[in-house]
Amino acid sequence: MAAYSPRLSRLIEALRRLPGVGPKSAQRMAFHLLDRDRDGAQYLRDTLAEALAGIGRCPACRMFCEDQHCAYCSESRAATGQVCAVEGPADLLAIENGTGYRGRYFVLMGRLSPLDGVGPEQLGLDLLAQRLADGLTRELIVATNPSVEGEATAYYLAEMARAHGVKVTRIAHGVPMGGELEFVDSGTLAHAFTGRTAV
Amino acid sequence: MAAYSPRLSRLIEALRRLPGVGPKSAQRMAFHLLDRDRDGAQYLRDTLAEALAGIGRCPACRMFCEDQHCAYCSESRAATGQVCAVEGPADLLAIENGTGYRGRYFVLMGRLSPLDGVGPEQLGLDLLAQRLADGLTRELIVATNPSVEGEATAYYLAEMARAHGVKVTRIAHGVPMGGELEFVDSGTLAHAFTGRTAV
Repeated sequence: MAAYSPRLSRLIEALRRLPGVGPKSAQRMAFHLLDRDRDGAQYLRDTLAEALAGIGRCPACRMFCEDQHCAYCSESRAATGQVCAVEGPADLLAIENGTGYRGRYFVLMGRLSPLDGVGPEQLGLDLLAQRLADGLTRELIVATNPSVEGEATAYYLAEMARAHGVKVTRIAHGVPMGGELEFVDSGTLAHAFTGRTAV
Repeated sequence: MAAYSPRLSRLIEALRRLPGVGPKSAQRMAFHLLDRDRDGAQYLRDTLAEALAGIGRCPACRMFCEDQHCAYCSESRAATGQVCAVEGPADLLAIENGTGYRGRYFVLMGRLSPLDGVGPEQLGLDLLAQRLADGLTRELIVATNPSVEGEATAYYLAEMARAHGVKVTRIAHGVPMGGELEFVDSGTLAHAFTGRTAV
């Protein structure tokens, strides 16, 4: 059985470790990099090297961070008394860019999922407990995704916050802005109905 | 507008240069590598480095190759007098593994596509001309894909071979094995009908 040369095979194998990349895509990527975009391959190699060397996790909020000092854990943010728990870095940026929220964050890097071996330890909830107990935190805003696992995580976080005497809130779920009622799924509509507010 | 830290942004940007990877996928890949698979990131960095340093093109057939000496351009293969022109390295492997063909190859690394700026020069057809004129080649087997551009390329290659007095053949197009006539598209069926052979 003929096969690609050893280095090419290894490159294809390495590309397959990227999420969502199967054998055919990995092949296509390798050929593209070697045949048409050697600059891109070099750039990827260099950025991987500098990312591996320079990107760590904030020891307090678990966000990716390059310095000792995390931009989202500043004193002015701590002064708001609010901590927002999100599932991932992309959620943090979405909230930062889409809302006026300027408190601190806690990035879970996942959600509770016992079947996948993700428990409180993997989400660094001991760090969150420290943050809840630091005497500065008055409100925990739970902004996990409204999926089954996200809801279970939210419930767990709420219990934790209550145990620390910290107020807990959950971001509202309902009909999205610009959405049309007739096309909204029934679960969302039921949520929106029971969560109605006085106007 | 909040954004990721500089190294993380550069890594995402580098991943976006891979074919078929958009901004969201690149983000997901970067998070996956940094959060869950740092070994994979290192492996990718190392395999990229060794691929860039060690993988070149065979100066005669344009196949990716790691040594001066290309495995598909051996003397025993040249002795068959056959050269098979394919669009890419994956096609070469498919023919090598799926057929008994053991002649030489010529890897175009693309197909003629004037709108995309791919002409005879980009496909290295001067090298193919050398091979056709080397006195060893008696038959050029054109195995480009049966797409519009692949057919145009096949036509061009056939003209070249005839100019060098080399016999040209094209791989057969017709109903695929195991396929059912009623589900085969009309273009393929018309090809199969006009290309019928005596039994």
